[in-house]
Amino acid sequence: METLHKTCSWGTGKRWGSGANDTGMSRLALSDADKEVRDWFVDTASSLGCDVKVDAIGNIFAVRPGRREGPATFAGSHLDTQPSGGRYDGILGVLAGIEMLKVLKDHRVETEFPVGVVNWTNEEGARFPVSMSSSGVWAEEIPLETAYGIREVSGTATMRSELERIGYLGSIPASYKSTPMAAHFELHIEQGPILEAEKQKVGVVHGVQAYRWFTVEVTGRDAHTGSTPLGNRADAILLAARLITHSHRLATKHSALASTGILTLTPGSTNTIPGHVSFTLDVRAPADSTVVAMEADLKRDFAALAAGENIQGLLDGATPSKPLEVSWRTDSISPATLFHPDCITAVRASAEAVTGDRKLVRDMSSGAGHDSVYASRRCPASMIFVPSKNGVSHNPEEYTSPEDCAIGAQVLMQSVLRFDRM
Amino acid sequence: METLHKTCSWGTGKRWGSGANDTGMSRLALSDADKEVRDWFVDTASSLGCDVKVDAIGNIFAVRPGRREGPATFAGSHLDTQPSGGRYDGILGVLAGIEMLKVLKDHRVETEFPVGVVNWTNEEGARFPVSMSSSGVWAEEIPLETAYGIREVSGTATMRSELERIGYLGSIPASYKSTPMAAHFELHIEQGPILEAEKQKVGVVHGVQAYRWFTVEVTGRDAHTGSTPLGNRADAILLAARLITHSHRLATKHSALASTGILTLTPGSTNTIPGHVSFTLDVRAPADSTVVAMEADLKRDFAALAAGENIQGLLDGATPSKPLEVSWRTDSISPATLFHPDCITAVRASAEAVTGDRKLVRDMSSGAGHDSVYASRRCPASMIFVPSKNGVSHNPEEYTSPEDCAIGAQVLMQSVLRFDRM
Ligand SMILES: NC(=O)NCCC(=O)O
Ligand SMILES: NC(=O)NCCC(=O)O
Repeated sequence: METLHKTCSWGTGKRWGSGANDTGMSRLALSDADKEVRDWFVDTASSLGCDVKVDAIGNIFAVRPGRREGPATFAGSHLDTQPSGGRYDGILGVLAGIEMLKVLKDHRVETEFPVGVVNWTNEEGARFPVSMSSSGVWAEEIPLETAYGIREVSGTATMRSELERIGYLGSIPASYKSTPMAAHFELHIEQGPILEAEKQKVGVVHGVQAYRWFTVEVTGRDAHTGSTPLGNRADAILLAARLITHSHRLATKHSALASTGILTLTPGSTNTIPGHVSFTLDVRAPADSTVVAMEADLKRDFAALAAGENIQGLLDGATPSKPLEVSWRTDSISPATLFHPDCITAVRASAEAVTGDRKLVRDMSSGAGHDSVYASRRCPASMIFVPSKNGVSHNPEEYTSPEDCAIGAQVLMQSVLRFDRM
Repeated sequence: METLHKTCSWGTGKRWGSGANDTGMSRLALSDADKEVRDWFVDTASSLGCDVKVDAIGNIFAVRPGRREGPATFAGSHLDTQPSGGRYDGILGVLAGIEMLKVLKDHRVETEFPVGVVNWTNEEGARFPVSMSSSGVWAEEIPLETAYGIREVSGTATMRSELERIGYLGSIPASYKSTPMAAHFELHIEQGPILEAEKQKVGVVHGVQAYRWFTVEVTGRDAHTGSTPLGNRADAILLAARLITHSHRLATKHSALASTGILTLTPGSTNTIPGHVSFTLDVRAPADSTVVAMEADLKRDFAALAAGENIQGLLDGATPSKPLEVSWRTDSISPATLFHPDCITAVRASAEAVTGDRKLVRDMSSGAGHDSVYASRRCPASMIFVPSKNGVSHNPEEYTSPEDCAIGAQVLMQSVLRFDRM
């Protein structure tokens, strides 16, 4: 925990309490703060006896030799954070990996095959709006050039220009073929309320729900707020407001999730009706088919609302306006993922061993995406969840107790060692 | 028209057609471009025989002596524009004033009392979000220190710091007591569709509707879009979307207008439910009592929606969420205005004389605010409207034909001269 909090001095975010560590994190991918914690990761892993390599998309692989040659069993996660995130999301998984290297070294443990720790680039998709972009490149599910071209949300830098700027555009190919893995285990905070509510300690994660990210553009016409009658308007923020309102009704109907995290409007003046609004839509559900059905419903209803149809009474009592245009861009697709039985078994056995009580352990699936999603496309993978206070994440107040972090770190190391022996 | 388009080289905005003048304007108050056109105004008015003075809020008064001493009859408007505005809003009124000075000089006309042209600072309220701020200071309806403290919409500069920076923090007091006016006439584009629809040429403006500007702040809780169930959210953009949707229903109910021109959300990440949204609300109606009733309804219903009440079925089909906070700030209040009968009479007589056809002239009221609103608190005032193509304003495509601009300029000059003789 000491090391974790020390590394959180690179990219410290909003203060929320009076304690020394009561601040969130703001360590956007490939920022100066990200470079600093990466340098620390490289130095620390090297000093613990690892061979450290950086690939063409900035993923950092630290590998500790085993008795035999062969693909390493990895512990991995990410050191980047949300713009206003916490100290545990991603960070805990990488720091527990480093802790594993220390323990193996201190106890002179020899593994059968190599073991490693990986720090994946831009997992959050906050600054560069494709989540898990670089485990995606490693898995060859996202082309390298596509990832290089991802532009930051506010600004003009790309992943490639920022990798170059901070010196992390590495020399080895970004591919599972160059850096094969025997398995990938990821310790992560739950980011949801279940473990806490059930007073349980470890989640054995057998899968991740499906999600798609879209950008919706609404085009109307700039006009004067004082001299333009309601019926003569093509008000882009009014339509966007109706679309967002409706997306939540559809989410309820499908037992899915729909969320808007970014919205920009132009020109942005109190007395100009905005002619253009763009907003993100993050749609999730356990089954791919639900996400597909949601997308179809959203597209149909958004077009109807833009044309002035009164879907579900949304226009009741409002003056009909001029029609507007709605266009869609798909920013990323993450299908539903099932982890590997061998890894799930290794995690469950380790969790029961560490907690000594089967009732403190539960099987669960993940609402959030993780690098293990892409890792699992190219090697066996699973995840370990530990409780999140109030289920809160992507928030400076994200918190997991030191005791729970320690349990998670022990389960992570045991899982890696079990798999190595298997 | 030549001079008007020449001065539009300072602050040229978006191109919308292929003609030489088919670009909009982006000349925000107290920007570098505003300084350039101000310098031009001072030089031109001086060279036309005016005494030019700048007051403490940057209003520029150019006065041409008459046979006798006394308060001047002014033509006035503003040279600042919207961020994405057109070439006529405000600009036409000031340029027609300059044209009046030229005509008076060329024809060696002697007026009874002085006549003048005034360029008011920050009429738009686009960069510094209080419209007509500086005619408001002149009228002593807005305290000078309040206006000095107005902060730009995006950034940290204030009106005072920008006045200093561009060298227009003048030495004379900003007050009708230091610069009294015999009357204030303002030529302006209609910014609405009526004159064009009715094939008429001149609007004799007898009043301006009431309006109030508010900033609404919505506070919920930042949370993960993937791991936070709908029922566990306090989603600030979802509530803001419902509030904006509902504000338009209330506007219809009250035969009023409600518009949102600026909306900002934090933290602004695709996979973080935003915990905070702020948006502007511009509420207008012909009668003050309607605006007051709208405000009361909006405040009551916004609070109810924040608490989860299903106002007018807006929450139908959506999962109830956690309660959120809504707070209000009043940014400005502009009561309904009636212009002075003497000025209205002068404008009507001039319009009938210039057009030679009473049917081409109509009495009307203004949906938009203008500096004449504040001027009318301290001297007789009225306005002259000329047609706006498609009724469009606060848009680069704003357009009034050269012929209509010329008619307006002639009516302006005649109104000033008629009043001077009266
Ligand atoms: N775990 C996590 O916060 N990942 C970010 C990707 C996502 O949006 O689910
Ligand atoms: N005429 C004009 O566009 N004035 C701006 C003030 C307002 O919002 O009405």
